[in-house]
Amino acid sequence: MQVEIKAPYLLFLGDEPEQSHAKTAMGIAYWRPESCAGQLRLPGSGVDLGLPEMTPAEAAQAGARSLIWGVAGVGGKMPRHWIPSLFEAVDAGLDIVAGTHSSLRSIPGLADAADRAGVSLIDIRNPPAGLPVGTGAKRSGRRLLMVGTDCVVGKKYTALAVAKEMVDRGMNADFRATGQTGIMIAGSGLPIDAVVSDFVSGAAEVLSPDNTDDHWDVIEGQGSLFHPGYAAVTLGLMHGSQPDAFVVCHQAGRTMIDAFPGFPLPTIPELIEHTIINGRLTNAAIRCVGVSINTSGLSADARAACLAGISAETGLPSVDPVATGVAPIVDHIVDTFK
Amino acid sequence: MQVEIKAPYLLFLGDEPEQSHAKTAMGIAYWRPESCAGQLRLPGSGVDLGLPEMTPAEAAQAGARSLIWGVAGVGGKMPRHWIPSLFEAVDAGLDIVAGTHSSLRSIPGLADAADRAGVSLIDIRNPPAGLPVGTGAKRSGRRLLMVGTDCVVGKKYTALAVAKEMVDRGMNADFRATGQTGIMIAGSGLPIDAVVSDFVSGAAEVLSPDNTDDHWDVIEGQGSLFHPGYAAVTLGLMHGSQPDAFVVCHQAGRTMIDAFPGFPLPTIPELIEHTIINGRLTNAAIRCVGVSINTSGLSADARAACLAGISAETGLPSVDPVATGVAPIVDHIVDTFK
Repeated sequence: MQVEIKAPYLLFLGDEPEQSHAKTAMGIAYWRPESCAGQLRLPGSGVDLGLPEMTPAEAAQAGARSLIWGVAGVGGKMPRHWIPSLFEAVDAGLDIVAGTHSSLRSIPGLADAADRAGVSLIDIRNPPAGLPVGTGAKRSGRRLLMVGTDCVVGKKYTALAVAKEMVDRGMNADFRATGQTGIMIAGSGLPIDAVVSDFVSGAAEVLSPDNTDDHWDVIEGQGSLFHPGYAAVTLGLMHGSQPDAFVVCHQAGRTMIDAFPGFPLPTIPELIEHTIINGRLTNAAIRCVGVSINTSGLSADARAACLAGISAETGLPSVDPVATGVAPIVDHIVDTFK
Repeated sequence: MQVEIKAPYLLFLGDEPEQSHAKTAMGIAYWRPESCAGQLRLPGSGVDLGLPEMTPAEAAQAGARSLIWGVAGVGGKMPRHWIPSLFEAVDAGLDIVAGTHSSLRSIPGLADAADRAGVSLIDIRNPPAGLPVGTGAKRSGRRLLMVGTDCVVGKKYTALAVAKEMVDRGMNADFRATGQTGIMIAGSGLPIDAVVSDFVSGAAEVLSPDNTDDHWDVIEGQGSLFHPGYAAVTLGLMHGSQPDAFVVCHQAGRTMIDAFPGFPLPTIPELIEHTIINGRLTNAAIRCVGVSINTSGLSADARAACLAGISAETGLPSVDPVATGVAPIVDHIVDTFK
């Protein structure tokens, strides 16, 4: 009962001139190169993922199953001159996967063409129907949740990095996606913030089902318990995830909730305490196992001082997932749960 | 941007034999007699609200604007032989208001008949489109929120009783409905648990907008912060309500979350502390102003001992809203916020 996407992918970039608007495609190409058959660009594109250039027909020939809309245009709009590529993809037998604001189904004729070709138009903003109310019942296996001081502080990146580090060490682990880009990277998941509030913890339960005792679900977080708009999403995701462990994610230097004036970020110890107070409802043994800081705005010296300070304050491994990697956090998890 | 219902009402009871399945209609007749034009029953009905018997045409003649589906059948189903009454109502120019599981629109021909008659089919389970993300911005006026140890512990009843007591004293107050029955009683509101989780605190902000400094919104609560399925709803409602004050609601003798084995209820002091810890995000001055206990299962002596014990433990007025009334809580609010 998750959103499911068929790999391999043809990543569609249109003629988007700005690399910064292609973060979704870049994330997929970076984290799941084995899922990427090629890229499709229109004249004028300023983005290059380094993948083979393919038409939809060539991609289908090479085994691709889905065309992924990999760019976020202004306001999530679909430029008109990109639409013929979608029809080409459908005619070539590819599903189309998008999370744009205007629905794929609003493009005249596309749904009919998809029906004729026997392919699907997948809007990854739409959770599946029939999600249950959360039960709180204990599930087997282990769960690690990312918890943020705010939105956009590196929760998805940290979860992907931890899951990769675990798998690289031969551990039994899966990344579990709760947002659009994460779902495209993982190939499945649930857009947790689009779930009706009555079912948000139930959706999180569906996302990380019973598993073997040695298995880790590494769950992408959403929002922040200190966010006046999104804390309900964060709490429901946490209750349903019943995490054994969590990693605090933060961007160095950020002091206020982004775009919400008057709402200061918690300190990291405050966030750890507040997460435990709320998280113990569904897992009495919940504990923090590390801190992940985006220090991209800092010099190497300032980064080292920042991470050392947080480690001293919390007694936990503190990393920048890009600059230092997340190995110390995985070391600590292995030690703690052996 | 709320669900809006036009009064006066014709309360439709079908041939429901069980009084206990007509709680919605009974609540409307009890709390809003001035909104009730009459009742419509079919042969075999076992429910009597003491209202004038009327056909839809007679009710329309008497000024009624809406037929309210006032019974909860097994599984929320609509018995077939009740459906002709709905067509009669539409033909008489009444809106139809329901919260049943099968949609009014699924009844063949009813939507067309409503269009022809220029009336609305209102499903109060459906929140309006376009609800915003919560901002957390401080609003003028005062807000009082009901907070429960569990679901179905008397939050709606307590809120209605407090709002009525305030209005009876000449205070400036409104009951704000967050669930189906509450919306039918108030004539407007938002079904907060049906709102997408990203917008749940925003919906609560819409429900209790800026008001005069002396005005109290008395807000129906939902769920419980200690409920493994619904705590996200509760938290989002609280953050958006930014309550100045809250009343804890509880049913005497209940020790476990109803139908969720393994989840004990918090003590009342625990719930007060946890509510303040989470509620201060959007109102740093949040405080508990009373405790409302459903003691219907207790003898008079046991009730007195129960309420006295809770008052001693919390230092707050403790009432049974039915047996003792809520005046001590309103007294305390008046004292505290004068």
